[in-house]
Amino acid sequence: MFINSTNSLFKVPEPTLRRLPWYLAYSKLVKNDGQAYLSSTQIAKNIAIDASIVAKDLSYVKIQGRTRVGYDVNELVAVLETFLGFKRAHKAFLFGVGNLGGALLHDGGLAQFGLEIVAGFDVKYELSGTSINHIPIHHFDRFAELRQQIGVSIGILTVPVQMAQSVAEKIVDGGIRAIWNFTPYRIHVPDNVVVQNTSIYAHLAVMFNRLNEIEKNER
Amino acid sequence: MFINSTNSLFKVPEPTLRRLPWYLAYSKLVKNDGQAYLSSTQIAKNIAIDASIVAKDLSYVKIQGRTRVGYDVNELVAVLETFLGFKRAHKAFLFGVGNLGGALLHDGGLAQFGLEIVAGFDVKYELSGTSINHIPIHHFDRFAELRQQIGVSIGILTVPVQMAQSVAEKIVDGGIRAIWNFTPYRIHVPDNVVVQNTSIYAHLAVMFNRLNEIEKNER
Repeated sequence: MFINSTNSLFKVPEPTLRRLPWYLAYSKLVKNDGQAYLSSTQIAKNIAIDASIVAKDLSYVKIQGRTRVGYDVNELVAVLETFLGFKRAHKAFLFGVGNLGGALLHDGGLAQFGLEIVAGFDVKYELSGTSINHIPIHHFDRFAELRQQIGVSIGILTVPVQMAQSVAEKIVDGGIRAIWNFTPYRIHVPDNVVVQNTSIYAHLAVMFNRLNEIEKNER
Repeated sequence: MFINSTNSLFKVPEPTLRRLPWYLAYSKLVKNDGQAYLSSTQIAKNIAIDASIVAKDLSYVKIQGRTRVGYDVNELVAVLETFLGFKRAHKAFLFGVGNLGGALLHDGGLAQFGLEIVAGFDVKYELSGTSINHIPIHHFDRFAELRQQIGVSIGILTVPVQMAQSVAEKIVDGGIRAIWNFTPYRIHVPDNVVVQNTSIYAHLAVMFNRLNEIEKNER
């Protein structure tokens, strides 16, 4: 069965999946503070989201709260981490070891959220055989062979924008099933391939504009 | 005048500001290919967005298309880059030189999008006086003094989640007006401070879930 990754056939709505990590972060704080129970009202208040949304979001997660006291904090943290996939090590390849690609290889924090980058690939021959943060870098030619060998489903796309589409096609041909796209290019892939766009530069544009408007209004 | 950064008092809607960088990326590709004119229909088709949305988004930008041929590509690229703030060097401080913070200091690509990280700050004394990618790292105690000296409005927040709120408060007290928040914590700040949340780990949760669902459906 083919599924378009943007449609509503998925069980858990995307906004819910985006909010659950906030609840997890807050639950971990509360856990560190030694609190035993946590209500959806307390989460809602702290995160400034409607309590009914928090309750609805948590209804997708298999956890039972106790009347009047709320959720067991240890259980909530454990259940959310598992539900969000942060407890499994999802192996990934990174494509394009430039500025941003190199930066992501340096980010050891990704492993704590379930993403294990096992190799980087680039078309520059001088990068082959080197490593960043103990992660080996290979020439792109070796991708298909290594993918079969290691069994990797996830590709992180940090190539220059003009190569985004052609590299996306090649890695999908080679067996990649989910692409974390950091390029500002909207790649086209078959419906049964997941694309997660993370355009950090688009966020910059929003921030610059808001800062500019606020400063203008204060003049 | 105080403005809540999430309300609709801003001239340009956030979805528009998030899409414009896609149009810019595509316009740059077309420019590199030597094409002289570009229509909103062509952009729409390539990015798989409704042509009326593209036209509406571009109506916020001061550029006139020509009937039947569309926009002058060179002009479109230049106008979009300026409009999005990518042509100005916005100075920023980074707070929390851990995994992700260190990774962002390594990302020379940010400068191409108008963000110039001029210093990093951390509470670890052993980091003071070191540098990453030629960017100096200071003890957090020196922040307020250096901010006044250099005149920085933007703070990048990459501290551990349990410190997110307290560091946010301190940097706002010290004069930071816009926070690019990479922590999964929803920080609370005064209404006249801009917060841009970039939870890359939340995107991971969405990707893991979609990949998992697709693989389940294929079994």
